[in-house]
Amino acid sequence: MAKSYNVAVTGATGIVGKELLQILQTRHFPLRSLKLLASPRSAGKRIPFGEQEIEVELLSHDAFEGCDIVFNAVPDEISREYSPSAVKAGAIVIDKTNAWRMEPDVPLVIPEVNGDDIAGHKGIIATPNCATTPVVMALWPVHRLNPVKRFVAATYQSVSGTGGAAVDELEANTRAIQAGGRGTHSAYPHEIAFNLIPEIGSWKDEDYSSEEVKLVNESRKIMHAPELAISATCVRVPTFVSHAAAVWAEFSNPITPDEVRDILSRAPGVVVQDDPRAHVYPRPLEAAGTDPVYVGRIRRDTSHPNGIALWTVGDNLRKGAALNALQIAEELIARHLI
Amino acid sequence: MAKSYNVAVTGATGIVGKELLQILQTRHFPLRSLKLLASPRSAGKRIPFGEQEIEVELLSHDAFEGCDIVFNAVPDEISREYSPSAVKAGAIVIDKTNAWRMEPDVPLVIPEVNGDDIAGHKGIIATPNCATTPVVMALWPVHRLNPVKRFVAATYQSVSGTGGAAVDELEANTRAIQAGGRGTHSAYPHEIAFNLIPEIGSWKDEDYSSEEVKLVNESRKIMHAPELAISATCVRVPTFVSHAAAVWAEFSNPITPDEVRDILSRAPGVVVQDDPRAHVYPRPLEAAGTDPVYVGRIRRDTSHPNGIALWTVGDNLRKGAALNALQIAEELIARHLI
Repeated sequence: MAKSYNVAVTGATGIVGKELLQILQTRHFPLRSLKLLASPRSAGKRIPFGEQEIEVELLSHDAFEGCDIVFNAVPDEISREYSPSAVKAGAIVIDKTNAWRMEPDVPLVIPEVNGDDIAGHKGIIATPNCATTPVVMALWPVHRLNPVKRFVAATYQSVSGTGGAAVDELEANTRAIQAGGRGTHSAYPHEIAFNLIPEIGSWKDEDYSSEEVKLVNESRKIMHAPELAISATCVRVPTFVSHAAAVWAEFSNPITPDEVRDILSRAPGVVVQDDPRAHVYPRPLEAAGTDPVYVGRIRRDTSHPNGIALWTVGDNLRKGAALNALQIAEELIARHLI
Repeated sequence: MAKSYNVAVTGATGIVGKELLQILQTRHFPLRSLKLLASPRSAGKRIPFGEQEIEVELLSHDAFEGCDIVFNAVPDEISREYSPSAVKAGAIVIDKTNAWRMEPDVPLVIPEVNGDDIAGHKGIIATPNCATTPVVMALWPVHRLNPVKRFVAATYQSVSGTGGAAVDELEANTRAIQAGGRGTHSAYPHEIAFNLIPEIGSWKDEDYSSEEVKLVNESRKIMHAPELAISATCVRVPTFVSHAAAVWAEFSNPITPDEVRDILSRAPGVVVQDDPRAHVYPRPLEAAGTDPVYVGRIRRDTSHPNGIALWTVGDNLRKGAALNALQIAEELIARHLI
């Protein structure tokens, strides 16, 4: 009989937690048991899971007893506090937060890119930030053959990346403006409806946002390219789901758009949508709810001899978060590491 | 007594034409007479202008008799057909279309950048595409002191750049999606509400869109930098007014963000909004209806020794179109060229 696993999900009532519960079912993850853990505010709630309902239990330091895998979909500071307890209890933690990603002994993994790194885990495996994943997925297959030396990325990020309250805020702001007024805002420093906010996260060195710093540092770590030159501008846009990015990448050697299309069309987890004359290119509204990272608008960077410009879109809740976390668990199983 | 001018506006019932009529009033342009010209569909309509109403006349080859200045806010092909007749009638044509911009004997002018080029006109003066203007306004003041060698720009362009029908389509699409359905679309190849469309204009060589090609060629012409290396990705976003761009520019020599801020803070027509920790940076919703080009998020491009990253926003109907056209007329007057 195939092995099955005792799984816990923290933050199960959040926007990524809900997505994870759905994907656990649709991908038929071999569950022996499923425990949902959350803050006192959510503990006691009953969450549908397939035919059953599961009561949310209180997240505590001894809630991980008997767990094989813990998926963390909680804020950074909660992960920082509770993950060590989960590891101590013998579980492998798959963490979607920013708490552990840059720790040297924590693998930061996109299975299609650096699945091999999983083997080096010490109990915690991190999944990248939702803006990093589509960019790395689009560049890695080419980078393996012709190393990227530098890239810049301008992102177009949906409100679901912030969480459920931000989704409600875009809804409410939109209605307010359509009614001829202006909305209130608390999830964002300004109204997001029919607007653009070039501020994601907190402010770090040299006036880069934390989201921009994540994109730089995580890409380098995942691609094993500590010297890779990167700059990003991360912008919140009024879309609900899926993050997009316009990317300019400079490779070590000349490469044609056709070669890039050919490489990406054979890359796992990537779908090339690149027939602009037929209006085919990745779009957030159509990518939402699907698994792949889409890449299109692949063309020569007319400003650099070895440059390629492209446009990539991926569902930030799926491949950008919950799906990637689950794929890490599947990879652990496939590699007999659990 | 100050001189005054016989002015005609073609396309007066369109979105840019309306903006122009408003700016003619608010800037107290020295009008002797104002003639509004449009297609048979709009001819006969009465348009309010200050205290009066002006009846729209039919655009024809002999409608320009006695005109000193003709502002064209019509589609490219209409400008191509009628502008020579206006010039023949002795008028100076200030043209917001793409019909003449790249003609060698047509100055393409942003007054704050290359106002001197106006003197070389042969009857037609072109105003740049609305996506080009904010990028050039942000780079030119620095370029004069430390030439830009290369830049890439990812744009975030509002639907009003397409015209009135697109504004209605974003409105209608938004309502349809908020009602739980999907909208129809004809102004765009896909739904624009809560979505992103990386297609603006038609497709040109090497899979660049016409909008992207304009940004490249027009920037080079306006900045007198035919060798400048440029690549752009132009994206339509669900905002109503104002175009934004994330720009990475490589200068000939190292330059600090503080130096750039200092230069731009003294540049005419540019307003620096750059205090990210106080949530101050340019935003489309707040820039709409105002004249300046706003620049913020000015920081070191961490991927290039001489690089600067920045974020710029400008009202595409004003500085991106109508205001710039009117400023060209004001420049003609100030330079005694009319």
